[in-house]
Amino acid sequence: MKKVAVILSGCGYLDGAEIRESVLTLLALDIEGIEYSIFAPDIQQYHVVNHIAGEPDQSATRNVLQEAGRIARGKISPITELAAEQFDGLLIPGGFGVAKNLSSFAFKGSEGEVEQSVIAVLQAFKTSNKPIGAICISPALLALTFGDLQPTLTIGHHAGTAAEIEKTGAVHQVCETNDCVVDTTHRLVTTPAYMDDHANLKDIFQGISKLVKAMVELSK
Amino acid sequence: MKKVAVILSGCGYLDGAEIRESVLTLLALDIEGIEYSIFAPDIQQYHVVNHIAGEPDQSATRNVLQEAGRIARGKISPITELAAEQFDGLLIPGGFGVAKNLSSFAFKGSEGEVEQSVIAVLQAFKTSNKPIGAICISPALLALTFGDLQPTLTIGHHAGTAAEIEKTGAVHQVCETNDCVVDTTHRLVTTPAYMDDHANLKDIFQGISKLVKAMVELSK
Repeated sequence: MKKVAVILSGCGYLDGAEIRESVLTLLALDIEGIEYSIFAPDIQQYHVVNHIAGEPDQSATRNVLQEAGRIARGKISPITELAAEQFDGLLIPGGFGVAKNLSSFAFKGSEGEVEQSVIAVLQAFKTSNKPIGAICISPALLALTFGDLQPTLTIGHHAGTAAEIEKTGAVHQVCETNDCVVDTTHRLVTTPAYMDDHANLKDIFQGISKLVKAMVELSK
Repeated sequence: MKKVAVILSGCGYLDGAEIRESVLTLLALDIEGIEYSIFAPDIQQYHVVNHIAGEPDQSATRNVLQEAGRIARGKISPITELAAEQFDGLLIPGGFGVAKNLSSFAFKGSEGEVEQSVIAVLQAFKTSNKPIGAICISPALLALTFGDLQPTLTIGHHAGTAAEIEKTGAVHQVCETNDCVVDTTHRLVTTPAYMDDHANLKDIFQGISKLVKAMVELSK
């Protein structure tokens, strides 16, 4: 696995990509000597949340691509420019942005829809048998898109979300923060990360590192 | 060193805290088993920069504390509540926010001023002989505040910034990204991180990890 595409959903766990998971994903890739390019949809965020109050700021609007550009240090492209043939794998960190901007899972659960541009990318990697890694709530995208294939995924210990994901046909497997679940048949790797709000960074980094190593194995 | 205070200057390297340095700081602390609390000034950002265009968005305003709250996952307090006696050390990640929001170093160089609340915190840690770690451009705050003590600091290989910092009386020492400079006399530790725009994350993490270990040694 020489080069991976990373999809971000904004910048901040309540309305965009989970920042820490995003950075630790890039660190884990760098440690394995894997190059990456970062992408995001060029769309408005579902909303903007004040991360201290935890409440939406009704007067504010932000663009998913521009905000994700903060994590990407400006080196980011619209997801419509993501060509799966240029990459050996796909990686999606979590955060509510996944469930609010990349899909409507936060509002509609198993009845939610995935953003068209994201579906196209997921299917391109799946069809070409390239591994997809999904962190935290991102496995919901895999369930919504590939649920009828009955892939095995984890959302950690989060029973409510696990039940919702299983309605799509996906099989949920409980997993600790410092570990990951590998579905070798469908080449999908998932790790819970901040699905546990009280998880510590060391364990999250271990889980993401294992996920990256599992993707390397699957891509051989 | 059981507990460290971390000061953030926003969220995004062009107008706030460097996101990756901030997250890797928290990871390095967690790996060493050191607790942390995060603080930021409750002030408006100097400006808001579109991180893709690299240009200020003149119509936008954002609050430093609220934006830093994205990295802190809401667990953050105003810097005026930072009581040095509750901590064993102080750590400041970089990003232009340090030179635009925590000080005016970006605009006035060695003639710049440090935000009053930040000076108070720096002096409280210095007076009580607790180690201060400064990453990337943050050593500029140390130079502006303690330059007359002639502390030894690094800003990596960035000659222009090094020259500016030396005008304060501070002594600059060249340093690689994966290393840090320790001033044992003044208990200051500094590492260049993204002072080199092309640095890779693995090296930055190594530099920050060494800085944290050096702070542990200094606090003994």
